[in-house]
Amino acid sequence: MLLQIIRSVSQVPWPVGCAKLSTSPIFYKPQVAEEVAKLLQLKAQLNGGEESQNANQKFTLKTPKGTRDYSPEQMAIRSSVLDKIISVFKRHGAVTIDTPIFELKEVLTGKYGEDSKLIYDLKDQGGEILSLRYDLTVPFARFLAMNKISNIKRYHIAKVYRRDNPSISRGRYREFYQCDFDIAGVYDEMIPDAECVRVVYEILSTLNLGSFVIKLNHRKLLDGMFEACGVPAESFRSICSAVDKLDKSPWEEVRKEMVDEKGLSGEVADKIGEYVRLNGKIELVEKLLQDEHLIKSKSAVEGLEAMKTVLKYCEIYGTSDMISFDLSLARGLDYYTGIIYEAVLLGESGKGDDVAVGSVAGGGRYDNLVGMFDPKNKQVPCVGVSIGVERIFAVLESKLSANKSKLRTTEVQVYVASAQKNLFEQRMLLCKELWDQGFKVEHSYKKNPKLLAQLQYCEEQLIPLVIILGESEIQKGVVKLRNVNNREEVEVARNELGIELHKRLENYKANEAL
Amino acid sequence: MLLQIIRSVSQVPWPVGCAKLSTSPIFYKPQVAEEVAKLLQLKAQLNGGEESQNANQKFTLKTPKGTRDYSPEQMAIRSSVLDKIISVFKRHGAVTIDTPIFELKEVLTGKYGEDSKLIYDLKDQGGEILSLRYDLTVPFARFLAMNKISNIKRYHIAKVYRRDNPSISRGRYREFYQCDFDIAGVYDEMIPDAECVRVVYEILSTLNLGSFVIKLNHRKLLDGMFEACGVPAESFRSICSAVDKLDKSPWEEVRKEMVDEKGLSGEVADKIGEYVRLNGKIELVEKLLQDEHLIKSKSAVEGLEAMKTVLKYCEIYGTSDMISFDLSLARGLDYYTGIIYEAVLLGESGKGDDVAVGSVAGGGRYDNLVGMFDPKNKQVPCVGVSIGVERIFAVLESKLSANKSKLRTTEVQVYVASAQKNLFEQRMLLCKELWDQGFKVEHSYKKNPKLLAQLQYCEEQLIPLVIILGESEIQKGVVKLRNVNNREEVEVARNELGIELHKRLENYKANEAL
Repeated sequence: MLLQIIRSVSQVPWPVGCAKLSTSPIFYKPQVAEEVAKLLQLKAQLNGGEESQNANQKFTLKTPKGTRDYSPEQMAIRSSVLDKIISVFKRHGAVTIDTPIFELKEVLTGKYGEDSKLIYDLKDQGGEILSLRYDLTVPFARFLAMNKISNIKRYHIAKVYRRDNPSISRGRYREFYQCDFDIAGVYDEMIPDAECVRVVYEILSTLNLGSFVIKLNHRKLLDGMFEACGVPAESFRSICSAVDKLDKSPWEEVRKEMVDEKGLSGEVADKIGEYVRLNGKIELVEKLLQDEHLIKSKSAVEGLEAMKTVLKYCEIYGTSDMISFDLSLARGLDYYTGIIYEAVLLGESGKGDDVAVGSVAGGGRYDNLVGMFDPKNKQVPCVGVSIGVERIFAVLESKLSANKSKLRTTEVQVYVASAQKNLFEQRMLLCKELWDQGFKVEHSYKKNPKLLAQLQYCEEQLIPLVIILGESEIQKGVVKLRNVNNREEVEVARNELGIELHKRLENYKANEAL
Repeated sequence: MLLQIIRSVSQVPWPVGCAKLSTSPIFYKPQVAEEVAKLLQLKAQLNGGEESQNANQKFTLKTPKGTRDYSPEQMAIRSSVLDKIISVFKRHGAVTIDTPIFELKEVLTGKYGEDSKLIYDLKDQGGEILSLRYDLTVPFARFLAMNKISNIKRYHIAKVYRRDNPSISRGRYREFYQCDFDIAGVYDEMIPDAECVRVVYEILSTLNLGSFVIKLNHRKLLDGMFEACGVPAESFRSICSAVDKLDKSPWEEVRKEMVDEKGLSGEVADKIGEYVRLNGKIELVEKLLQDEHLIKSKSAVEGLEAMKTVLKYCEIYGTSDMISFDLSLARGLDYYTGIIYEAVLLGESGKGDDVAVGSVAGGGRYDNLVGMFDPKNKQVPCVGVSIGVERIFAVLESKLSANKSKLRTTEVQVYVASAQKNLFEQRMLLCKELWDQGFKVEHSYKKNPKLLAQLQYCEEQLIPLVIILGESEIQKGVVKLRNVNNREEVEVARNELGIELHKRLENYKANEAL
């Protein structure tokens, strides 16, 4: 049995406007660096003997295709986003686990359908045949089955690998982060499912990404709808993948695919078209429960009853304002067995129409995956969500770049400078005292740096406070304390310095923008 | 040119006592799970048709050789350790970066000497030839050269890969964490070097691992010492690797290797023996600066002068009590060009002799590595340290296991329970209110759980507070608040609940043991 378990939110096109990133000075430019390296290499070859001493540099200096380094600025954005996401996961009582970056190839075999060709294999160097993980869900299922765990609520944030043809300019990479939260265990219907939706709601609210909608649907309702429309059972899957395209293509195109490629009659396709145009709230469930065609399907009724339950729970959990019951939401259906959901960011409000900028989270219930790993086929029902952190990083990078915000990549609170020569040991001593008190402190690694250079460094690095040491102050037992922002200076007694620094740093936050 | 750049602290034997881990209930047992899986597989084969329905489970359920999953308990220890280490790095103003898990194979070629055979290669699936990273230092040097960065202070915590023959029982793995802090840039002598030593000092102090010593030595002094003793220049490297064994082997064995295998005369070996037995503080530097043989070597004098400087700076930075200038410290000398250091945990004090339990950090100056990647051979001098986090994790796991400490793997503050049936919507509503206020809250995913089961869960999970909902309390507008530890219950007005919870949780810490 092949499964499509790709949570498609994790690999998404770069949003419009992010192309700007490559011209922003705060981001490294691997492509440029790569080109420069190539040119320098050619030059070295032309120069022959002169450069050939450096026998080690015979190749282009680059990261592998489809991968990149993360600069300090990118890491600052990433940490800030992940910290906020993790605090939501912890608010809901999740533990975290980690699994190896590679698995026995057999573990991944037969789980990803035709996308299996995108799996990275390790070279056979004797011993086991290994592959890099393709997502975090299959390793999670393997972990549950192997350790006989029948209930757990865990998050896992880690890199996964896909030998896709990357289009870096569109933000698609071969190495990228996934960020999953899953609840495994036998529980009462829709209670953990509604909590996953609440987790998505809290994360998107706390990240301040603008307005969003969480679309919900149910696999059983989709199956029942196809049944009611007269789709042959063996075509459910392919018709479903056609429906899945409705977020990118107009109905006319999808209809064409159903009729011309997938052999549906126009009449059946049009019936589907009636349904997939529907979206709403609980009143739509009530309306569909009156639909004479739909209620002939047991599966559809079960799906609708489940939707009713989950929508009620979403009401209690305070998420229903953001929720849309949407019959066009299909996702990777081979994999999901119950509720499915997907969160979509809407454009900035106030700029006219809400324009969808894409999916940033998605998931659903998958009750049959763990059993595939259990020798006795013991099932562990699961429901989970994958946060599309790469897209969220990209949206924030783009936002910061557009604002021309300068990002702090360190948390240094105080810089210790000296105004004259030969005070470096005094500087070191003061740093030591401040480190002992837990302050984040830097000073110049040069013995006799120029005062102006030291002050400029603080302004560039957005360090809020500078202590300036001078001979006369040292003799008086005081230091000069300078506010970098407004350049105001005051004298502070050395023995009151700690208290004064604490007072001034109390409400300081390294990056207001994040 | 081959370099030995293995920071040996990252792969260390499991400390004595850690074998106990595998019998501790808080840790998963992959070996046991693996054996069980094998037996079940055999059973399935014997049963033939009956089990063969489950066509997906044809293989042993395990992680690849030399790797492991990290359980929630292990992750809790890891997070706690890494958070403390990162806060020290941040106190010193470091940024962080990340690099891909694999590099072009050429980047790694010629950097690891005979250990190159331990590099994991990826299968050639068309395109570039790739290898998994072996450490974080070579990718850092590649990053600096590629992005033309001439100064940076960064930390990097990530997994590295070595196809070693793992002896899991001794805690050696093929996939393990490295945790590096490096300062790159042209600065005045020994100022960043002394700060790296200070960073090690702060980390080991804050982790509360018992007493430790940081051994210092200098590459130039070692070279000068060999020169002064009459070792032929071409043998410096092999004699150095013999000296490196002095932390494990007695002098007699090392001498034997020098004479029998490496062709030194007994007289020369004995001269070396005199020196490598020496360790002390600044007075030893002064003494050696009077040594008539040593001071004939320019290299030795330079090394000694540098040691004098760094020991003075260590005095200022308050680390000198923990420092030992140790002439037997050799480390991977092909790689280092200046100061080298290594931190060693001493046994528990008060238990008689201080017994060394092993190296937990090490590093030094390497001024020539970045230039190997630069087309013009432009050097970027670097000094850094690698914290042996895997060994630190193991020491803490062992300690917790010995104490029989139960570790919290979540941070749940409040559990919402119900005393009667049909209150699950009331529970959900209260959870929602508490999540809105930022509390970390869980409740049962079952509609009608038994009260006793709910209270037991809280005791097992060490959740400090439970709110118990009952019909009569709901009608009165109050809740019952129970302290899980002493089982005391009080009634609290629903509208004062937030304040009361804040008050009770003010000084609560999830894991006192960490």
